[in-house]
Amino acid sequence: MNTVELIRKKREGQALTEEEIQYLLAGYVDGNVPDYQMSAFLMACYFKGMSEQETFTFTNLMLHSGEIVDLSSIPGTKVDKHSTGGVGDKVSLILAPIVAACGVPVPMISGRGLGHTGGTLDKLESIPGFRTNLSIVEYKKVIKDNGLVMIGQTKEIAPADKRMYSLRDVTATVECIPLIAASIMSKKLAEGIDALVLDVKTGRGAFMQTRDLSRKLAETMVKIGTQFGKETLGFITAMNQPLGIMIGNWLEVMESVDCLRGTRGTNDGSSDLMEVTHLLSGAMIVLGKKASTLEDGIQKSKETIASGKAFTKFTQLVEAQGGDVATIRDFETRQPKPKFSCEVRATESGYVDAIDSLELGLASIGLGASREKIDDVIDPKAGIKLYHKVGDKIAAGDSLAVFYTDREKSVESSRVRITNAFHVSSKKPLSQPLILDVVDKNGVREWKL
Amino acid sequence: MNTVELIRKKREGQALTEEEIQYLLAGYVDGNVPDYQMSAFLMACYFKGMSEQETFTFTNLMLHSGEIVDLSSIPGTKVDKHSTGGVGDKVSLILAPIVAACGVPVPMISGRGLGHTGGTLDKLESIPGFRTNLSIVEYKKVIKDNGLVMIGQTKEIAPADKRMYSLRDVTATVECIPLIAASIMSKKLAEGIDALVLDVKTGRGAFMQTRDLSRKLAETMVKIGTQFGKETLGFITAMNQPLGIMIGNWLEVMESVDCLRGTRGTNDGSSDLMEVTHLLSGAMIVLGKKASTLEDGIQKSKETIASGKAFTKFTQLVEAQGGDVATIRDFETRQPKPKFSCEVRATESGYVDAIDSLELGLASIGLGASREKIDDVIDPKAGIKLYHKVGDKIAAGDSLAVFYTDREKSVESSRVRITNAFHVSSKKPLSQPLILDVVDKNGVREWKL
Repeated sequence: MNTVELIRKKREGQALTEEEIQYLLAGYVDGNVPDYQMSAFLMACYFKGMSEQETFTFTNLMLHSGEIVDLSSIPGTKVDKHSTGGVGDKVSLILAPIVAACGVPVPMISGRGLGHTGGTLDKLESIPGFRTNLSIVEYKKVIKDNGLVMIGQTKEIAPADKRMYSLRDVTATVECIPLIAASIMSKKLAEGIDALVLDVKTGRGAFMQTRDLSRKLAETMVKIGTQFGKETLGFITAMNQPLGIMIGNWLEVMESVDCLRGTRGTNDGSSDLMEVTHLLSGAMIVLGKKASTLEDGIQKSKETIASGKAFTKFTQLVEAQGGDVATIRDFETRQPKPKFSCEVRATESGYVDAIDSLELGLASIGLGASREKIDDVIDPKAGIKLYHKVGDKIAAGDSLAVFYTDREKSVESSRVRITNAFHVSSKKPLSQPLILDVVDKNGVREWKL
Repeated sequence: MNTVELIRKKREGQALTEEEIQYLLAGYVDGNVPDYQMSAFLMACYFKGMSEQETFTFTNLMLHSGEIVDLSSIPGTKVDKHSTGGVGDKVSLILAPIVAACGVPVPMISGRGLGHTGGTLDKLESIPGFRTNLSIVEYKKVIKDNGLVMIGQTKEIAPADKRMYSLRDVTATVECIPLIAASIMSKKLAEGIDALVLDVKTGRGAFMQTRDLSRKLAETMVKIGTQFGKETLGFITAMNQPLGIMIGNWLEVMESVDCLRGTRGTNDGSSDLMEVTHLLSGAMIVLGKKASTLEDGIQKSKETIASGKAFTKFTQLVEAQGGDVATIRDFETRQPKPKFSCEVRATESGYVDAIDSLELGLASIGLGASREKIDDVIDPKAGIKLYHKVGDKIAAGDSLAVFYTDREKSVESSRVRITNAFHVSSKKPLSQPLILDVVDKNGVREWKL
């Protein structure tokens, strides 16, 4: 067997055998297959795809390149959620405490934001003192004591994926469904979960811009999860505007805390955020065997907000991972203020027809809220707060949003970019569904509760 | 501009601008674009190709990554020939002295053999003492004094190509017409030529296995040459059997010397070799302005053999580059003999219908005559001599070929492989044309003298 022949085989559209994939991945990990051969292979995969069997093998080998955390000593069915990432998507911060408060343990390993989408780790780290770099031993202790834990990928978890993801990022080979699915699933399967809920975002501003591609990705991940014996449920959700009203790390923590306290999320700009959150946490509660139907799960999810149990669970998490709970309880006064805070105003009257999440995500890079390159430093205070969302009636001169930054030179370009992200129409737009499809081991079907 | 965006642009099938290609290539040469990004880009080129303008720009930048030799102080129109390489293709060794003997200077920079095809450098180096690693200064002196010179690619010539070719070789990105054309042409244009003749082999055992691909490659190279103001003429020639009777480095030198002396090449197994040689040298003599028509050029080519001038020119070349002329004059006794010399016999009676050059090329790797990897050491004595060629009538038990090797363990497998390379039919095969097409700046047309 030699690497060039394997690259050529994939280039010709043939499926590699398990031994061949093993040869490539083991070689990549131990240095016998250099980056330049792997990147040519990955580009060939971009063009030629992978069979189901190849995708499974690839996932399995990446998973076994590191440690698979054993949480069997912790009682209960451990359930996690993964989102493919969207603009303003702070669901994990709200959902994890909800589900844990219902008695379902949530072991969550998340990533950082890159490009126009944010990352759960960056949001959590905007809470003063919050540590996401726990060891596996600490990770096990926090979930045992609190029923939830939220950390970043450690060096023990799927190291082959970690290295390969960095390579894909700099070689334009990220957008390949089998590689995306294998990357996500190898990390999730290493966490010690028993079941998994997936949120695949679709539309402009999402990673997958069409519903077909989103379905394909969700189906691929559900199949992998099922093959590994983990009950896996996927939802396709729309991203034709940011989720909720805040974009930016500390801003999103504040919105999440408001939602956890029940002071936001009903008949306001955060309603869409809470609709998605309750659906996903409801599904997790069912998979975690604390509800028998999805309706029941969603109901239980809502009750943890009303009872204050979800917020309490969140403060326990913050405390367990070294964060400053006082800042969470009194966030308006405790965090430093950004240097610039600028209003964005409507230039015409009408109805907000769409809010381009991609543009807002890109604007947030300019403000300092997100990274262009992996080693860029994030400003937790920077970001955007939306005053209006899709369907709202507005008049010329109305304030549409406010943005925060320390970067004076970004102010004018950001104002233009954010203004243009609001599409205004003379007609009230038809309301569009937020939850589009559900995917289980039997395939995809259009969503209906 | 950033590298990932440029890779993505090519991946999406868009043409890169001159500045973008410049950014990539300059970055590659100075180390800012690492191998792993270049290999992903090259694989994207494999799938998406390059426009004419991109191919020209790519060639131009590779050419200008190094020195362009200035031969303007040497009188005459300097003409070179390039072949895409075939099995038994020793045309350069015979043609260069012929053309030089006609008063047309031939500056020739050649490559080494890799895989199943041989390389002119390896053949020359099987002559004891022959130096192919001349400096540019020596290169200029040898052509000035002798009217021809044959060396390997120096570090000054198209260094970007040299590095990129090594990368393509190990990343399964060799078989891409714009990249092949740019690689060949950037080296040829750096030699200091005024005109160029191309021999694009087609068929099993050739680099391009179909006539369409061969035409496409020839057209691409002719267009590049023309854009650089160098008159360029291409021929598509068939490779449905090896050219001549010898395969292997020293064996091919011996066949070439016989042809140069006129003791072989007419009505024998080397006739096809001399038909191609006279055509290409005739074309070079025309481009070098020492003949007005191709017929006249071919006639002049034949006369240099008959007069002994071509052989004399070859001995001058050998002497000028440090080779042992006595070995050339008396090669039967002066070279060491291989340990094993084995006959291959026909297993059935009939007519030789085809001789699989690819199989013979692969067999020659096993014998030690060719390289599998770039740093393999070649045995100059190893190789194959054919007793029969396509169209010959044979009887079961007749000797078809003899092969030479020092590797005892290769003997039996080589015997099987070489036996199987001879396809025998009960009917005499129709004779097939050797020269298929001619390509000039006006396009391709079927060949007719």
